[in-house]
Amino acid sequence: MPDQLTIGLLGGTGPQGRGLALRFGLAGHRVLLGSRDPGRAAGIVAELVGDRGLAIEGVGNPDAAAGADLVFLVFPFVGQAEVLPDLAGPIGDKVVVDVVNPLGWDDQGPYLLEVPEGSAAEQAAALLPRARVVAAFHHAAPRLLADPERQVETDVLVAGDDPAARGLVLELADQIPGCRGVDAGPLRMARHLEGFTAVIVGINRRHKIHAGLRISRLGDDKRRRLNAELRPARGSGGLKERSAGGVRGTPEGCPGESSARGASPPENRDREEGP
Amino acid sequence: MPDQLTIGLLGGTGPQGRGLALRFGLAGHRVLLGSRDPGRAAGIVAELVGDRGLAIEGVGNPDAAAGADLVFLVFPFVGQAEVLPDLAGPIGDKVVVDVVNPLGWDDQGPYLLEVPEGSAAEQAAALLPRARVVAAFHHAAPRLLADPERQVETDVLVAGDDPAARGLVLELADQIPGCRGVDAGPLRMARHLEGFTAVIVGINRRHKIHAGLRISRLGDDKRRRLNAELRPARGSGGLKERSAGGVRGTPEGCPGESSARGASPPENRDREEGP
Repeated sequence: MPDQLTIGLLGGTGPQGRGLALRFGLAGHRVLLGSRDPGRAAGIVAELVGDRGLAIEGVGNPDAAAGADLVFLVFPFVGQAEVLPDLAGPIGDKVVVDVVNPLGWDDQGPYLLEVPEGSAAEQAAALLPRARVVAAFHHAAPRLLADPERQVETDVLVAGDDPAARGLVLELADQIPGCRGVDAGPLRMARHLEGFTAVIVGINRRHKIHAGLRISRLGDDKRRRLNAELRPARGSGGLKERSAGGVRGTPEGCPGESSARGASPPENRDREEGP
Repeated sequence: MPDQLTIGLLGGTGPQGRGLALRFGLAGHRVLLGSRDPGRAAGIVAELVGDRGLAIEGVGNPDAAAGADLVFLVFPFVGQAEVLPDLAGPIGDKVVVDVVNPLGWDDQGPYLLEVPEGSAAEQAAALLPRARVVAAFHHAAPRLLADPERQVETDVLVAGDDPAARGLVLELADQIPGCRGVDAGPLRMARHLEGFTAVIVGINRRHKIHAGLRISRLGDDKRRRLNAELRPARGSGGLKERSAGGVRGTPEGCPGESSARGASPPENRDREEGP
């Protein structure tokens, strides 16, 4: 795995796509910001990059998919099912990171849309049967991503069925200052990550903030060690770490204690409930 | 609103019920820990209280429901629909806090069970049509609740359709050292709180910790001010604050900035996407 990846952002002209493009460019990656309209993508990139000298290019979605090592889906939810079938060819068996939050809004505030596949990410997996789909970056506030002077204060929960793909995306998350990649398990967890965005959007609206979330009691040493185990052995030693100084640690967990709680697996319930 | 409430914990003999009983007892409330078997409840309370001199009693579920000012549901999910219809009478129009996480477990780990009403809390609301149901405390680790020497490091997200009921439960959450009550909006958000427990249980299992979650960038001054606005005016000035020293603050949000992100309501989308 080289230190520099080429990252394609499909549907990347919205706030989330622009923010991720900027952060991945600052982390030293080459970014292909894709749009249905390559001219619009080029204009947005010119504005985004300014005189920063970052390797970000605005291109059409198919070129972003074909030219990338891994691909982010940052469409609005309604666009995903329309656009993906035509991109399945150039995407092939790449790692695909679905950032899409299928949210609606009514007089009670934000709510999660019904997705027959269970989540936007599982819909993408159904439309891209060869790709290794993971769900991640739902809770990274676009306003914070867009401002390189600010920390993006959130844990990036990464769900997917391919451990090496999860490991790669966890490593990418750690490269954004203030973000911590946290393994959230199989792809079926995506619905809960997407659903929790509705909670955060409601909290943002109520409190006028750009919130994220932190998993408490998750120590960084253990987190990094377990995340690294997901990646196949690499000559380069992994992606370059750029965010360590910016991440506020939380105290280490409690080594030796049992991990399950609440919904322990049945065979552990008696032990968990103890005296 | 008196400083001391009588809190009924229905199905309170499990780890979550025992932990909440202990913490509410330590906060100065009177607790009725209910079980189908009053003798079992009394035995568990004797062990839990020891020589602490806390006002916790073990009783039958109907007595806990009838004698309480507000009621917690801490059943296993399968028990809730069986037991609640018989308790609707004594519960009446009280505030009901549903802590139930409808989780299953298979070879991929924890997963959320299908609940026709949308969530365990909405099921409770359907079975208790007069009660003011809120969903809360899903992410407070029983192992931490059970140990008064430790902080329960989590934000307690509170969802419900009755603002005064939400406000009361937010205030209760603030009384447990390490917990912060955060308004999570209407009751339909309960499904996302319950679903996120599956994510946390998986993280616990993987990392061998007792995790919770924190909403980042949510400043305590703003949080407390908005929470207090949910409560009707009271002579006593609200429940006594006991946890302030134990809560680690997060930096204040960004006053004056727009709050929405990701799924902005349609009328704000253009403004939100602006350069």
